[in-house]
Amino acid sequence: MSISLEPVAVAHTPFKEKFAIPRQPALAPAATAEIRLLPPYDSPLALAGLEQVSHIWLLFQLHQALVQPNDAPKLRVRPPRLGGNEKIGVFASRATHRPNNLGQSVVKLEKIENHSLWVSGVDLLDGTPILDIKPYVPYADAITDAHNGIAAQQPELTEVLWQEEALAQARHHGQRLEQNVIGLIEQCLAQDPKPAYQTPSAERRYGVRLWDLNVCWHYPTADSIRVLSVEPA
Amino acid sequence: MSISLEPVAVAHTPFKEKFAIPRQPALAPAATAEIRLLPPYDSPLALAGLEQVSHIWLLFQLHQALVQPNDAPKLRVRPPRLGGNEKIGVFASRATHRPNNLGQSVVKLEKIENHSLWVSGVDLLDGTPILDIKPYVPYADAITDAHNGIAAQQPELTEVLWQEEALAQARHHGQRLEQNVIGLIEQCLAQDPKPAYQTPSAERRYGVRLWDLNVCWHYPTADSIRVLSVEPA
Repeated sequence: MSISLEPVAVAHTPFKEKFAIPRQPALAPAATAEIRLLPPYDSPLALAGLEQVSHIWLLFQLHQALVQPNDAPKLRVRPPRLGGNEKIGVFASRATHRPNNLGQSVVKLEKIENHSLWVSGVDLLDGTPILDIKPYVPYADAITDAHNGIAAQQPELTEVLWQEEALAQARHHGQRLEQNVIGLIEQCLAQDPKPAYQTPSAERRYGVRLWDLNVCWHYPTADSIRVLSVEPA
Repeated sequence: MSISLEPVAVAHTPFKEKFAIPRQPALAPAATAEIRLLPPYDSPLALAGLEQVSHIWLLFQLHQALVQPNDAPKLRVRPPRLGGNEKIGVFASRATHRPNNLGQSVVKLEKIENHSLWVSGVDLLDGTPILDIKPYVPYADAITDAHNGIAAQQPELTEVLWQEEALAQARHHGQRLEQNVIGLIEQCLAQDPKPAYQTPSAERRYGVRLWDLNVCWHYPTADSIRVLSVEPA
């Protein structure tokens, strides 16, 4: 029995690659996105009432590194949370490599505009196909006595420092893009995107693309990050 | 672009029809279900680690009254919450009639047994195809400052009374099924399943099937329910 779905919208986000995407969307409020509805749902009628809602669920396809129906099933995954070495069951993890490639994120609804939703706190790759949009229902969805021993707390944050010139570049491009580029870089890097098992020398350079920018940084010490440059990609 | 999915599990629940299913899963803790994994995921490996998690998300197909790809798109729905008369956008509602027929419910994980999960607080029809299982992550999913002006609070509950014989029947069948049948009936009926626009006479009988039982009730007054019988279907 096979189920066939069509995207109802597409997400336009700052994230052009998986590296450095926040592991949970709430951790990067400066990560904004446009959710653009596709025909036949590109009508304000389909959104009527959403102005009364502060947060929405996005159900989407994890469209990079798709698990194909004929792939050997992956029953266990190595979540980055556990250092990338320990394996747990795929259904005990939110890992992106999973059966049916379905993702689920709650984001803050900032603005509704004709047939687009502007949201913040996203962890979606640019171009992600959106399969459904549902209002967050606090009395049902916010389970305050729930516990999760694997992901009990927000990951610890790493200090993000700036080379003076990089900060000026980020400010400049933020104005050009009308986006909080400084905040986005700080929030993404504070989660320390490098694999947990790496202990890089201060000479090693890391980079990621955000919006149309290449962001370059290094680790001056084991527990801090310094942004070195923010330049057009 | 079409996306193809295969169920990873099937839900075995008390609900044999849509009528009287709780509108939000948290409102009926006595609604228990077995989520039975399907091959190739029917392995304890896929569940390893879940014992550290109190709640899980089920992503599933709303497999009754499916919206077909060729159906005229329904941009607005009439949620029961608003009395069934007012229309709102489909993406502002959790209504079951929606594009891609995707459902999303958080349930309490009670027990893990080989390749089954026993859960409570379900609002799924018996036989529902499960498309993904994800752990609830409290720090990301429980948004305590979220608001939703359409579904701000739990629905008001209706008082449920029992005909003496019906209570004895429910107790008997509860023991036979090893289920809290009395609690399940009370929790489902307290949400008053009849359409909001109906004001039935005391003579009118209502019925629903729960597990293998027919539950029959009436409205002695406009704001109370009395269970009249609980008999094998």
